[in-house]
Amino acid sequence: MERKILVAIDEGEESTYALSWCLKNFVSENSKDILVLLYVKPPHVVYSALDGTGYLFSQDIIATMDKYRNEVAETVIEKAKKLCKDSLQDVKVETRVEIGDPRDVICDVAEKMGVDMVVVGSHGYGLIKRAFLGSVSNHCAQNSKCPVLIVKRPKNSVATSTS
Amino acid sequence: MERKILVAIDEGEESTYALSWCLKNFVSENSKDILVLLYVKPPHVVYSALDGTGYLFSQDIIATMDKYRNEVAETVIEKAKKLCKDSLQDVKVETRVEIGDPRDVICDVAEKMGVDMVVVGSHGYGLIKRAFLGSVSNHCAQNSKCPVLIVKRPKNSVATSTS
Repeated sequence: MERKILVAIDEGEESTYALSWCLKNFVSENSKDILVLLYVKPPHVVYSALDGTGYLFSQDIIATMDKYRNEVAETVIEKAKKLCKDSLQDVKVETRVEIGDPRDVICDVAEKMGVDMVVVGSHGYGLIKRAFLGSVSNHCAQNSKCPVLIVKRPKNSVATSTS
Repeated sequence: MERKILVAIDEGEESTYALSWCLKNFVSENSKDILVLLYVKPPHVVYSALDGTGYLFSQDIIATMDKYRNEVAETVIEKAKKLCKDSLQDVKVETRVEIGDPRDVICDVAEKMGVDMVVVGSHGYGLIKRAFLGSVSNHCAQNSKCPVLIVKRPKNSVATSTS
């Protein structure tokens, strides 16, 4: 049985916990499962969120922000890949980085790749982003066409360190 | 590794699909996992939902309704147990029947039993009940303290028959 499991990852501890829970509880040693690690970069911010006045950043600033976002994406992906390999040596891992609203991107990628399950942390995307975006896990649960596993990090759990 | 997995079951096909998905994808042969099948009976309806006028049913009618509800509960539980045994011969199954709002009961039982995961169908509890109760899966995802797996039945899937 070869299953594709899409795990949405971000810079938060919730998603790290979700990934390790999935590795521990869902993927077994020597299985043919493929873990698809998806990181969604936020789109360019060109409008001020507070007063609605549109303004464009200069090319310099945009380039710097892009560089920073790419570095974050790379770090998150590398950290997640390491967690996979440390947990299950032979696990097959694919990585994808996309740009957009994580709520839509996760559902889109899940459908296009025909994955068997989507795994999301319950508090993905941080407090501030969540306030703007609404709950990612809620949106995925409602709109994804495949089963969705929402992993909540217990309050007393120690964050999984992969460094 | 002994895990407790709570599967919320009802008379709908969504929950039958969720249970079989869980059996196929989550519980392995010869595992020590315990499946807890939870059926939540609706509480007594003593108020008319349409005009808000409270009225009591006669004892006779209440007794008949109780009998009917108990029969439904028993049938659903038996059907689910059979599905478990047909899928995995040695799987450990516990059953529980509770009364109340399924949204709260599922989260309460999950917490009290300290289960490792809750499994719900995405459209549990039927169209009409859902209109009154709101989405069970949503509520569980937000309020349960453990991971929640929401299983959506694909549109083209054939209902699993256990008869």
